[in-house]
Amino acid sequence: MSRIAYVNGQYRDTREASVNIEDRGYQFADGVYEVCEIRGEKIVDLPRHLTRLQRSLGELQIAMPMPLNSLEVVIHEVVRRNRVTYGIVYLQVTRGVARRDHFFPIHTVRPALVVTARSLNFEKNQKTAASGIGVITIPENRWPRVDIKSIALLPNVLAKQQARDSGAYEAWFVDAEGHVTEGASSNAWIVTSDGKVVTRSADRGILAGITRSVLTDVIASLQMTFEERPFTPEEAYGAAEAFVTAASQIVMPVVSIDKHLIGNGAPGPVAQRLREQFHKFSAFS
Amino acid sequence: MSRIAYVNGQYRDTREASVNIEDRGYQFADGVYEVCEIRGEKIVDLPRHLTRLQRSLGELQIAMPMPLNSLEVVIHEVVRRNRVTYGIVYLQVTRGVARRDHFFPIHTVRPALVVTARSLNFEKNQKTAASGIGVITIPENRWPRVDIKSIALLPNVLAKQQARDSGAYEAWFVDAEGHVTEGASSNAWIVTSDGKVVTRSADRGILAGITRSVLTDVIASLQMTFEERPFTPEEAYGAAEAFVTAASQIVMPVVSIDKHLIGNGAPGPVAQRLREQFHKFSAFS
Repeated sequence: MSRIAYVNGQYRDTREASVNIEDRGYQFADGVYEVCEIRGEKIVDLPRHLTRLQRSLGELQIAMPMPLNSLEVVIHEVVRRNRVTYGIVYLQVTRGVARRDHFFPIHTVRPALVVTARSLNFEKNQKTAASGIGVITIPENRWPRVDIKSIALLPNVLAKQQARDSGAYEAWFVDAEGHVTEGASSNAWIVTSDGKVVTRSADRGILAGITRSVLTDVIASLQMTFEERPFTPEEAYGAAEAFVTAASQIVMPVVSIDKHLIGNGAPGPVAQRLREQFHKFSAFS
Repeated sequence: MSRIAYVNGQYRDTREASVNIEDRGYQFADGVYEVCEIRGEKIVDLPRHLTRLQRSLGELQIAMPMPLNSLEVVIHEVVRRNRVTYGIVYLQVTRGVARRDHFFPIHTVRPALVVTARSLNFEKNQKTAASGIGVITIPENRWPRVDIKSIALLPNVLAKQQARDSGAYEAWFVDAEGHVTEGASSNAWIVTSDGKVVTRSADRGILAGITRSVLTDVIASLQMTFEERPFTPEEAYGAAEAFVTAASQIVMPVVSIDKHLIGNGAPGPVAQRLREQFHKFSAFS
């Protein structure tokens, strides 16, 4: 089945779906995006994703491309037309089309909106979670405004590729103070030997992950101890467990960091339990 | 007259010229670009721009979209079809179209190529140069790989807009050591009270500007003293002159920095002379 995308007012076959070459997303990375999980044909935590989308747009002074309720209709329609029961929906908003010039366009331009959806292989992802992933650490080299979920993702692309070239799946950035900030496409977590679940505060240096945020509710409800603080790669090497969170992966166990095996080198019980329990605390729409 | 763009093998009306929504330039800023001046229907310093293009692509492991001589033919054809006698030609190469995933595509994809050209208003630019521009300084907040001329330009866009919002035209980034790196879309220069022409080394923290590089030849030929070293905003406030260089502006005098008037607040003789002499040292093709 061919995939369907929503692009600026039209539902198109993805292969034929296009944007103008002077869309500022293409020439300047002048836009933002969101990725939501789809599960049982429902969208997971959509309101929180849309709240973050509005914040990102606000930081860049880009208007919402349409009213929020219309946007929700479009997102659901794209999921429906692609018949996705398990997968992801992707939405991207850019400042729109204007003659190339770094400055914001003087005349009001209409923000561009693209929405796509696709199925993921549930069994394959469960299998990956059952074996866990490898992580490398690399020096933080992104700009400080990573709190904006912008499409200026070239540093993330290079970090992910470096991970793959090293036989790993994710790269964790390490800041000038020697602390892990976050993954190239996920948030970074460890579990200490006394069972504390640790991740960095979303105040500074990282994106406020939606899966991260829901997971703090899960942790509280399961009466686990949560510690919001930075940690070093060295602490992570010696942690009982490690994992990453992202909408497309929920809770994904990490079994090696810079080739150091974490715990006994297999997914740990805390990560597995959080992964199992996660959707009891998600909003479905 | 409608403008013509080259896009992946076709010459199209720019309004109809489009790229797929899954072009990695649109979703990841995974691409690079060049801008060359057009003067007297000729392209200024094209070989140096193409050498830099190849370097940028190499750093990102993106293949050239076509052989170099074919690319030159396309560039000239876009200039010709747009009947530009004075203006700029813009070229952009991205990694190509692939299903969205941070990692480089496993299967070889064809890099995407877009070339556009447009006229600039010569008299207007001369007038701007005759009055000079204002600059603000802001903290450096771009990633360290600014030596790659990538389309991940969101920080530059925000810096330029901040300049405009302050009544200026350009923003100079200042690094953690308190030194000016470069402008959001230009290289930064000052002239000291004893006539030395100063700009930062292109070794680190800046893009190796083509106009910058040609200008060092001009300076040598005019037997001016050239000093390649960093300078602070404070030194610039007290400089005899300041200016910026970029393909679209050649040598553009700066008459204020952070609202401090430079020299007597009018374009200085060194900047004016360098601007006049520049094209005697350029290659035209």
